[in-house]
Amino acid sequence: MTDTPVTPIRFVLFQPSHPGNIGAAARAIRVMGYSELVLVKPEKEHPHPEARARSSNALEVLVNARVTETLAEAVADCGLVFGASARRRRLNWPEYNPRECAVEAVAAARTKPVAIVFGNEQAGLTNEELNLCNGLVYIPTDAVYSSLNLAAAVQVLAYECRVAEDILDVRPEPESPNASSADIELFYDHFEHVIINSGFLNPDNPRNLMRRVRRMFNRIQLDENEVNIMRGVLSSVDPAKRGGSDSD
Amino acid sequence: MTDTPVTPIRFVLFQPSHPGNIGAAARAIRVMGYSELVLVKPEKEHPHPEARARSSNALEVLVNARVTETLAEAVADCGLVFGASARRRRLNWPEYNPRECAVEAVAAARTKPVAIVFGNEQAGLTNEELNLCNGLVYIPTDAVYSSLNLAAAVQVLAYECRVAEDILDVRPEPESPNASSADIELFYDHFEHVIINSGFLNPDNPRNLMRRVRRMFNRIQLDENEVNIMRGVLSSVDPAKRGGSDSD
Repeated sequence: MTDTPVTPIRFVLFQPSHPGNIGAAARAIRVMGYSELVLVKPEKEHPHPEARARSSNALEVLVNARVTETLAEAVADCGLVFGASARRRRLNWPEYNPRECAVEAVAAARTKPVAIVFGNEQAGLTNEELNLCNGLVYIPTDAVYSSLNLAAAVQVLAYECRVAEDILDVRPEPESPNASSADIELFYDHFEHVIINSGFLNPDNPRNLMRRVRRMFNRIQLDENEVNIMRGVLSSVDPAKRGGSDSD
Repeated sequence: MTDTPVTPIRFVLFQPSHPGNIGAAARAIRVMGYSELVLVKPEKEHPHPEARARSSNALEVLVNARVTETLAEAVADCGLVFGASARRRRLNWPEYNPRECAVEAVAAARTKPVAIVFGNEQAGLTNEELNLCNGLVYIPTDAVYSSLNLAAAVQVLAYECRVAEDILDVRPEPESPNASSADIELFYDHFEHVIINSGFLNPDNPRNLMRRVRRMFNRIQLDENEVNIMRGVLSSVDPAKRGGSDSD
């Protein structure tokens, strides 16, 4: 069976509770032509009989689903990561509707894998997971009753991606591919290091500074060139490297 | 409980086999702000315990679902009827994709109820039912694996109708307003100054460096807080301010 398509849009379920939803999600992405399912710390054994039952004939997607311990691991090689949210947040996070998200995702997936991350059925995604996301995708719902089933949310996004693939105009190739999530993490480490060295960030009282920095640069979707430039800038201004010991 | 909205788009399931799908369909339409579910000759008793379980808190929609003997009865008062199909047909029937269907449905629903009809899980809709439809709505799927779950199909159409209603674009107020163009220019001056001081930018051979930096941060659309943070970072790392004169 090599009918399962290989496409670089990855659907990530973060700590899913119900195996039935996992099976239905496998079917939901498969029917739209996708095959990459990743499960971060599923609550029950995987693959579960109930997941098999609900996957219908998309069993291959279910069985091949990668299981990881952390979200960081699940998206390490991705150039673009969206977090799906049923609620609007007050955070200053870039927000996409499913259609906008799909267009961005399909375009970016030409150079590096793209992930769409779905939170746990009850808890959704916390700020810790959102720190790994470039943007939020908000599925519109009724104001009073907003309880969208997990597999239904996956279906809506997979459908929009599929539609975007069909109708997307050929966008110009980006000058430089998006940086990988792992490279971005190294950049944040570097950034933090330098502003600690410079005295701007007090490690004993970090406030929200690095979270704000992350939010700012996640929004930008840095490409590989840009990460290199910023790493160069950081090295050039690092007081530790310049020998100027920070003695105040 | 009068929270359930009254909207004139009706979701009709024709001879559904699985009560679980009926419950999930109730939830799927409710979450998008719809409430009118009609069941034509469901195979099992209604409402079935499994349907209740899968309806989550959309029980009101499930319990209030009208049950009819014929499709004709279910759509008698409708001004426009779509038949949902997972397969393309060779019939000379007007064909809509979900987006087009939703736009037509929402527009027509201003004057008379509109129905979207979904066939049985295995058999779909036969020509007899299609004779009652004004058009077919075709949900795109993978060419090889086209087995879209019934409730998932309802979810896609309900979602598209919801988007078509365009109730969605009230974005939350940003935490901090975007920085002014003038403030951004001051930030770029500052940035350039610091990387000249650090030796990263050679003013005699600037290449495209500042243009690239501008492109990167313009994309970010910095808000006022963020400009302040970045200005603070720059001041903290500026070799000139740190007294370490750059004498090479």
